[in-house]
Amino acid sequence: MTADRLRFVLFLNGVFILALAVAMLVPAIVDFAAGNHRDAIVFASGAAVSAGLGCLLVAAFSQRDADIKDRRTGLLVTVSAWLSASVIGALPLYNSEFGISWTDAVFESVSALTTTGSTILVGLDDMPHGLLLWRSLLQWLGGIGIIVMALSVLPALRVGGMQLFRSESSDISEKPFPKVRQIARNILIVYVSLTVACTVAFDVAGMSTFDAINHAMTTIATGGLSTKDASIGYYGSLSIELVAIIFMLLGALPLAFYAVFLVNRGKRSTIEGQIKPFLLIVAAATLASTAWNISQGMSPPMALRVSAFNVTSIITSTGFVTDDFSAWGSFAMGLFFLLYFIGGCAGSTAGGVKIFRWQILFLGSGRVLRQMLYPNALAPVRFQGRSVDDVAIGNVRNFFFLYIMTTLALSLLVMATGLDFLSAISSVAQGMGNAGPGLGETVGPATNFSTIPDAAKWLIALSMIVGRLELVTFLVVLQPWFWRR
Amino acid sequence: MTADRLRFVLFLNGVFILALAVAMLVPAIVDFAAGNHRDAIVFASGAAVSAGLGCLLVAAFSQRDADIKDRRTGLLVTVSAWLSASVIGALPLYNSEFGISWTDAVFESVSALTTTGSTILVGLDDMPHGLLLWRSLLQWLGGIGIIVMALSVLPALRVGGMQLFRSESSDISEKPFPKVRQIARNILIVYVSLTVACTVAFDVAGMSTFDAINHAMTTIATGGLSTKDASIGYYGSLSIELVAIIFMLLGALPLAFYAVFLVNRGKRSTIEGQIKPFLLIVAAATLASTAWNISQGMSPPMALRVSAFNVTSIITSTGFVTDDFSAWGSFAMGLFFLLYFIGGCAGSTAGGVKIFRWQILFLGSGRVLRQMLYPNALAPVRFQGRSVDDVAIGNVRNFFFLYIMTTLALSLLVMATGLDFLSAISSVAQGMGNAGPGLGETVGPATNFSTIPDAAKWLIALSMIVGRLELVTFLVVLQPWFWRR
Repeated sequence: MTADRLRFVLFLNGVFILALAVAMLVPAIVDFAAGNHRDAIVFASGAAVSAGLGCLLVAAFSQRDADIKDRRTGLLVTVSAWLSASVIGALPLYNSEFGISWTDAVFESVSALTTTGSTILVGLDDMPHGLLLWRSLLQWLGGIGIIVMALSVLPALRVGGMQLFRSESSDISEKPFPKVRQIARNILIVYVSLTVACTVAFDVAGMSTFDAINHAMTTIATGGLSTKDASIGYYGSLSIELVAIIFMLLGALPLAFYAVFLVNRGKRSTIEGQIKPFLLIVAAATLASTAWNISQGMSPPMALRVSAFNVTSIITSTGFVTDDFSAWGSFAMGLFFLLYFIGGCAGSTAGGVKIFRWQILFLGSGRVLRQMLYPNALAPVRFQGRSVDDVAIGNVRNFFFLYIMTTLALSLLVMATGLDFLSAISSVAQGMGNAGPGLGETVGPATNFSTIPDAAKWLIALSMIVGRLELVTFLVVLQPWFWRR
Repeated sequence: MTADRLRFVLFLNGVFILALAVAMLVPAIVDFAAGNHRDAIVFASGAAVSAGLGCLLVAAFSQRDADIKDRRTGLLVTVSAWLSASVIGALPLYNSEFGISWTDAVFESVSALTTTGSTILVGLDDMPHGLLLWRSLLQWLGGIGIIVMALSVLPALRVGGMQLFRSESSDISEKPFPKVRQIARNILIVYVSLTVACTVAFDVAGMSTFDAINHAMTTIATGGLSTKDASIGYYGSLSIELVAIIFMLLGALPLAFYAVFLVNRGKRSTIEGQIKPFLLIVAAATLASTAWNISQGMSPPMALRVSAFNVTSIITSTGFVTDDFSAWGSFAMGLFFLLYFIGGCAGSTAGGVKIFRWQILFLGSGRVLRQMLYPNALAPVRFQGRSVDDVAIGNVRNFFFLYIMTTLALSLLVMATGLDFLSAISSVAQGMGNAGPGLGETVGPATNFSTIPDAAKWLIALSMIVGRLELVTFLVVLQPWFWRR
């Protein structure tokens, strides 16, 4: 790791911190306009501090001839940007009037930026608009960051499996940061349009305009932070739930990918091969949950309604809730635990293992079984009409291995803090998949993460970042040889 | 699937059933000698029925020119032999005077034959010797069956990863059933010698001779069925526990492999590369458990004693217990849950993912991470000084994927029977790993599987068989194309 690389990484972190400083002006203005001067000052001073720090980094480490195409630099920028943004995002929460501890502030900030949507805050319904807006804004910005990262940075670093779709879209090149500016602009157009549409829909469905804006931002980001302790369940409105279901699904589809690449090039893509299986899984899980709830005595219409909403919410890794699904009984508990792992489509803001990886994993399994009978048969794994090379299959299988091992290892550490088995393993599994609520009485949908030990909060926040960074991005930076010159 | 193949499969099943009929004479004689005439008749009639069925199959389907080297036949014989042996093994239990249901009898028989060691029987301490001996004998025979299968059948079918060690030992050839008779004889010598040594050691340590014989058989098989409801904890004897620890470890080492191949050929094998990591994992898990128990207020000597015994018991997939480790607190719960997955060395009777697979998985991960920085570097995975080909790595990674997915899918089905999350997932995880006790108040070490729904018992028994057959052996037989002509 050379000094030049580190300088450049610090410089880029300065740029991200400056962007967050600008973002903090939004809640500052909202609070000021609403007469919450104390809160406005928190955000204004946060913006000032962040801007100062950002300018310092940019000025001190500015350099013209940095090697932005270097893999090591790209990886380190990616990891450090999420960490520094999480810290800066936590500042206004820590400085607020609600006595939020540093641990809680960082947990909330990480949860927002990674579009997880777990919360440690209680009493959201009465909190000032600026603070609520800040959480939603962080989540919305995190969503953009994820798509930009997934479509421009990670493929160049050979992470995230998006290189599988490479040959269809030459914008995804081997070089880091290809046309980042153009990609970011297109994503912004798609993302803002969807957010505006979602806001209007929530507004029409009966939400206040402020709630509609907040929920639209966290819906499109498949984040799930709410302005109400009871989440979407607060409204008790079928039309609001239907709007949320539609936009959560849109958020978990590779819409940005389409918008960025297909509009430009007019080519069809194998990435759309994820959509049908994804929707089938949502439908199957909804049916299973509905059948179970009916068997437990729930009326069929209610069983369908709560199942459709909460299954969609967890499988898209959004995390809104309308009912305590961990109180529906053992099968529902297991089903939602599985949903944490499934995830949405690649090229979206959704987390989890993701649909195309499941496709590759099952196709690869089928080949192994066939080769037991026909060991000499050449049987390439075919995905969307083209053969997938064995290195890509190996990477996907290795991703699954690391995903499970990280989940089990972090769960064990969370259990060492004293949290029970179910709370620990569901907290980490939802964190890895960026879902939102855990399972059970301690961290389940009916409550939140406010009561667990601080050490557990740090570990669960870590699981959110590791999951969000597609594991290997984070793990490679931990290797000693990564840091060798 | 041709009629000839099916005939031959039925013929071989007849042979196995005949062998079990002979084995049933042992408890019949023991019960008769002890004056338990009713029990003796149960076993004698069981032997008669089994012998009749076995003779019928052998006579009806005898054929001289069967293609024993055919893969399809080998797979079908392997799967069907475990299933038919389980059914035959259950007969004397079902017919006994204890009102054991068919479900319970099969569960117990499967648990014994797969060397899992879960039980649904309560009141073992007062049961007649014949019945207790039958359970131990089934487990001991299951142990032999596993080693013969792992060393002669599965490698030829490209299952179980033993082909990784192939080039060291030419006895493991591509052809099914290579020198099965010679291998079986050598294994029998090793296995009987170890069992005798273990019996003597238990006897000297203070067990009654009957208990010593039973526990020796289930220790060497890393099975874990006991003649006492309280398992080894019944004796409260440090020396008995130490004997058990030593022989459980021996059972989980690739001793039979050594005996069969190295004695014959005098070659060193890469299979021994598993031993050091295995013992290190046992030591590390024991230390972690000891430290946790001390932190929870246990005295250091007691913490070490109960940790060393129970950790060794679960990691070797034996399943004896001396304490209710699922009541030690959350970290211990998570630790033992992890231990279910680890397993012993390939070439032993131990279950689970097994050490060499973990080695390959972690080595493969390291390569993926390195290739992120050096994408053009050729980096073969080196295992014990030789490079492992990518097909073998792919098979191991796919094994892990199938192991986790099968565990999660069966757990979900068990939850649908009404069993709670922890009981369900721990029952299936222990079944897949052939460990023995589950976790929690319903199926934990302080109790057993007697109180759970019948459907759950069948599913957990299925997990034992799937795990024992290294998954793919079982799964391939379920594929529709397996049955096409």
